[in-house]
Amino acid sequence: MSETHDVAVLGASGYTGAELVRLIATHPGLRIAALTADRKAGQSMGEVFPHLRHLDLPALTSIDAFDPGGIDLAFCALPHATSQEVIARLPRSLKVVDLSADFRLRDPAVYEHWYGHPHLALDLQADAVYGLTEFYRDEIRAARLVAGTGCNSATGLYALLPLLKAGAIDPDDIIIDLATGVSGAGRSPKEGMLHSEVSEGYHAYNVAKHRHLAEFDQEFEKVAGRKVEVTFVPHLLPQNRGILATIYVRGEGPEIHAALQAAYADEPFIVVLPYGEAPATRHVRGSNFVHLGVIADRRPGRVMVFSALDNLTKGSSGQAIQNANLMLGLPETMGLMAAPLFP
Amino acid sequence: MSETHDVAVLGASGYTGAELVRLIATHPGLRIAALTADRKAGQSMGEVFPHLRHLDLPALTSIDAFDPGGIDLAFCALPHATSQEVIARLPRSLKVVDLSADFRLRDPAVYEHWYGHPHLALDLQADAVYGLTEFYRDEIRAARLVAGTGCNSATGLYALLPLLKAGAIDPDDIIIDLATGVSGAGRSPKEGMLHSEVSEGYHAYNVAKHRHLAEFDQEFEKVAGRKVEVTFVPHLLPQNRGILATIYVRGEGPEIHAALQAAYADEPFIVVLPYGEAPATRHVRGSNFVHLGVIADRRPGRVMVFSALDNLTKGSSGQAIQNANLMLGLPETMGLMAAPLFP
Amino acid sequence: MSETHDVAVLGASGYTGAELVRLIATHPGLRIAALTADRKAGQSMGEVFPHLRHLDLPALTSIDAFDPGGIDLAFCALPHATSQEVIARLPRSLKVVDLSADFRLRDPAVYEHWYGHPHLALDLQADAVYGLTEFYRDEIRAARLVAGTGCNSATGLYALLPLLKAGAIDPDDIIIDLATGVSGAGRSPKEGMLHSEVSEGYHAYNVAKHRHLAEFDQEFEKVAGRKVEVTFVPHLLPQNRGILATIYVRGEGPEIHAALQAAYADEPFIVVLPYGEAPATRHVRGSNFVHLGVIADRRPGRVMVFSALDNLTKGSSGQAIQNANLMLGLPETMGLMAAPLFP
Amino acid sequence: MSETHDVAVLGASGYTGAELVRLIATHPGLRIAALTADRKAGQSMGEVFPHLRHLDLPALTSIDAFDPGGIDLAFCALPHATSQEVIARLPRSLKVVDLSADFRLRDPAVYEHWYGHPHLALDLQADAVYGLTEFYRDEIRAARLVAGTGCNSATGLYALLPLLKAGAIDPDDIIIDLATGVSGAGRSPKEGMLHSEVSEGYHAYNVAKHRHLAEFDQEFEKVAGRKVEVTFVPHLLPQNRGILATIYVRGEGPEIHAALQAAYADEPFIVVLPYGEAPATRHVRGSNFVHLGVIADRRPGRVMVFSALDNLTKGSSGQAIQNANLMLGLPETMGLMAAPLFP
Repeated sequence: MSETHDVAVLGASGYTGAELVRLIATHPGLRIAALTADRKAGQSMGEVFPHLRHLDLPALTSIDAFDPGGIDLAFCALPHATSQEVIARLPRSLKVVDLSADFRLRDPAVYEHWYGHPHLALDLQADAVYGLTEFYRDEIRAARLVAGTGCNSATGLYALLPLLKAGAIDPDDIIIDLATGVSGAGRSPKEGMLHSEVSEGYHAYNVAKHRHLAEFDQEFEKVAGRKVEVTFVPHLLPQNRGILATIYVRGEGPEIHAALQAAYADEPFIVVLPYGEAPATRHVRGSNFVHLGVIADRRPGRVMVFSALDNLTKGSSGQAIQNANLMLGLPETMGLMAAPLFP
Repeated sequence: MSETHDVAVLGASGYTGAELVRLIATHPGLRIAALTADRKAGQSMGEVFPHLRHLDLPALTSIDAFDPGGIDLAFCALPHATSQEVIARLPRSLKVVDLSADFRLRDPAVYEHWYGHPHLALDLQADAVYGLTEFYRDEIRAARLVAGTGCNSATGLYALLPLLKAGAIDPDDIIIDLATGVSGAGRSPKEGMLHSEVSEGYHAYNVAKHRHLAEFDQEFEKVAGRKVEVTFVPHLLPQNRGILATIYVRGEGPEIHAALQAAYADEPFIVVLPYGEAPATRHVRGSNFVHLGVIADRRPGRVMVFSALDNLTKGSSGQAIQNANLMLGLPETMGLMAAPLFP
Repeated sequence: MSETHDVAVLGASGYTGAELVRLIATHPGLRIAALTADRKAGQSMGEVFPHLRHLDLPALTSIDAFDPGGIDLAFCALPHATSQEVIARLPRSLKVVDLSADFRLRDPAVYEHWYGHPHLALDLQADAVYGLTEFYRDEIRAARLVAGTGCNSATGLYALLPLLKAGAIDPDDIIIDLATGVSGAGRSPKEGMLHSEVSEGYHAYNVAKHRHLAEFDQEFEKVAGRKVEVTFVPHLLPQNRGILATIYVRGEGPEIHAALQAAYADEPFIVVLPYGEAPATRHVRGSNFVHLGVIADRRPGRVMVFSALDNLTKGSSGQAIQNANLMLGLPETMGLMAAPLFP
Repeated sequence: MSETHDVAVLGASGYTGAELVRLIATHPGLRIAALTADRKAGQSMGEVFPHLRHLDLPALTSIDAFDPGGIDLAFCALPHATSQEVIARLPRSLKVVDLSADFRLRDPAVYEHWYGHPHLALDLQADAVYGLTEFYRDEIRAARLVAGTGCNSATGLYALLPLLKAGAIDPDDIIIDLATGVSGAGRSPKEGMLHSEVSEGYHAYNVAKHRHLAEFDQEFEKVAGRKVEVTFVPHLLPQNRGILATIYVRGEGPEIHAALQAAYADEPFIVVLPYGEAPATRHVRGSNFVHLGVIADRRPGRVMVFSALDNLTKGSSGQAIQNANLMLGLPETMGLMAAPLFP
């Protein structure tokens, strides 16, 4: 067994913070040495998240009281904009996995366009690697700062990157229709996320202007070698976890399926379903797995590609631990092989 | 106040049957004179559906014990195939609103293709009018037999028929991504409809081969004057009621919005939302209203049209009563103006 | 048909306000002449509650801009404490149905004990009648100010008042175990009411100290002629609407059932189920009906009484309209006979 | 690390079977060597339960094709009555953990009373140990056949056994009000378990006659040394997993809390919450943990004790693995320490 690394979770009072703690609790190579949460400083994690009550964890402190000494890696689960400030003040020797949007976009102008303010830690951008593990494994292994992907972005990218790479689809006619559970909206109280508002209902939001479009644009252009603009419509589901992207593309079903199978043949977390089957969010819940499916339309040349993952695990905190494993020299799958929770 | 008409509900033990009874219970122009349900014959409606316990209703009988004497109109809420047999045996003087799929398709070959067996009451097909009220009002008023539409079909048709008519969209590039609640699957026990299977999850089903495609093909061709083949992917939502169609088309947003506003300016049940707003299924729940929305994509020439309705009400039993009102000479909106139930 | 009365809804941006509007929308004797909502003043009701979009309603104004001229009755759906201030400033000629807790308790000391501050409109207390319609019908008919009951209180009182009156149960051993949907907590964002927190879970809250205990104490003492202290444990359900009280009493099942049947034989909204059957919240959803059930325990002398109603309808806004009907000389059931929405 | 034991899951196509596979998938001491499911024989586990698709598992076979050679322990997740037949045909050398009701009750007459037919494997009864691990640890360690407890039974027993043992409560006035998620009803299609029937609703079922009463009677009598009859009312929750028992007892709050703390001080899976706090089902979801809480009523001498666990994990399959660990000489907590999944 590898040695155990001490890690910190900065911003532990949100859902991604809690998910990190949940996963690390039984991770044989990581030990939680510090937890911060400014508004909950002084409380125990068990008070803030009673499902973690059985664990022996350090108390929550303010971020200012955080002592990075002895810490091997910090997970930063803070809101964007806050994240760049906090990371800028951390010692450069400390490895960081950031779960916010702050270091995902290579171009500062693009960041400013989508997030509405200039980036304040541009020097750190140079260090940052985009955290889509299966596509940036070597860079992540060597990185000091890894930027976790958007959860919706990851869902779409797993389906489309291999297809654009293989030239299996028309890059000019891609529509990503996506549905996501509510936990992605976080734990801060908002009217629109109340049970009374969300349950027994379904609607589109941020239509054609969701910030995760910026990641699609960046990553698709990179792999296609040209600008690729997609249509992207996210919807809110009356459920807590899970994202399903239904992606409408032009190409041939069998070829598309073969391209995904080839790309992911050796990937431990990516399951390509038999041709003609569609995945479901409930079958990846609470896990680090991605399920991909391909079904041809009745109209020749049109194909649907489906991609399902859990936004809090593979779309966020599970991905973060997968990246941390690489950065710390641990086996990539360590602590992440738990099967999905169904029903 | 108009006179009261005696009606029967044949097949009252399913969800559409119960929804008919719920709506008729406070309908000032209709009175339930007979209820049939073969497998529940002898039981009271309150035993089969305790939410209707306060009502004074005739007991459930077998279909064979049904006496059409004195009945002005029969709602037929039986499974398809059964429906055509039963209706064939009814006196031709009895007006019928059929909620099954049996009389929706004009072409017997198309029926046989999609439903897997020959139609057994072809002579009745001639009588049948497709029950999309807002588009077949005059025919319905004069009809003896009205065929209720598929619930998914209605959702898509309300959005697309006016646009095809107006030439506001490209008929060769239409994608209907649709999500529906589970009540549309009926009350017969099926593994896939158990709470444990459905809740907290989302998936596509019958991809590219859902039977409601046949109605799309028929109605689109009729209005466009040429074959129009769409892509159609339905998904199952973890909720009971409601359908939302997210429809990807080519055209100009303002022109599309204007076409919908013009088409529905005088319609009491069709609400066209302000340009740029997206509807939600929860905002039409339990009602006969349809909410339509239009939002332009960031890519020029691409537009999303949204259509939301309640599958059991406007998509089925509410529509049936709206048609019955016309057939009986009652005001079209009678008994149907109840506001949606939210939250 | 009776004449139409102009009514106002003060505090129309919460769930009980929206429920009032939903019900009044098809009420043949009431017309909404004014809507207030301080924080949403200037918006339309359809913007705040899109399910009411089809209605032609006055715009929301601030409470200060409310003109009571021409209004026959005001529904006050404001938070407690605010409600007493607002009602104190209304003309005494205006009939008022208050949905807050401000005028439910006869004893100012009891109010201060449970609500933590002195009552500021004690002179109005004299006018106020407790709004449990079936038990205060004559007083309500003559009242200027009616205090709507707590939703949990109503659920328990419907089951227990007739039993205490009839001497059918031991008043010293009553346990009210109750489960309620989340809409009772209102539309203000609170962490504990987020979908992610509520769904797929169940827990007790305010155990042994819920404010509705004060109403139980007051009403039980009144009917029993002595102090009656009950145990009361409310739980939060992962659903929007509905309250079920499971009440453990000492007595004889058949006698208890008979007492309920006798008490409610002529009540249009109270359904006493056959002996041995238990009600469900889903079977009263969205309606003004109450379902009561009685089942004997295997232990002699112990009985369970069940009471189910919809907290927003019979527990709040439906009750308010039932009371308003009486206060305005309209038929008591007018606008309230819609059957529950199931599924 | 201990050696790995080969185990079989007989009846792998139900929810408890799937939960066993989920937990064993990352259990370092167990390996799945055989899976049976008569109606799904020939299919892969991934076809029957797509959330297990990433696992390399033996195909499902019929029970008749099951070869016990080389198997160290069999988990029997079959329906009751079937279970006793199957286990009777297994070699006596094979250790068995049975998850059905067949071997829970010591007295054959009691079994026949509650299950409606004579027991057919009475000779095996002698071997069987009741599988409430924390109370039968030594017997389980030595057992050949362990009978998993009812999930509701376990929930109540964890709260009450230590209190009866300590004499901290009046054994003649115990009321167990319990609410459970639907997964306990299994995967066989039943009308009452459809999403449309269960969601957005709550009701009591099997009132005063639930079969788990037999286990309460047996175990309470054993520990109290006299007959203890409780009142037990289970309710169905609109959620998949989780049971919460709200138990009304006579005693003193602090003494009761102290008795629970003392009983469970060294138990890895039983968390006694601070005095005055109530547990929630969502905080134990998917885990082997139990959360217990104690709150005093406002009435002196009356106390509420709360007990929450996941019916499929600690109430069934997790408990089964905990027992198997003991029977196989593995550390008791092995493979079971995963934190609950929240949200």
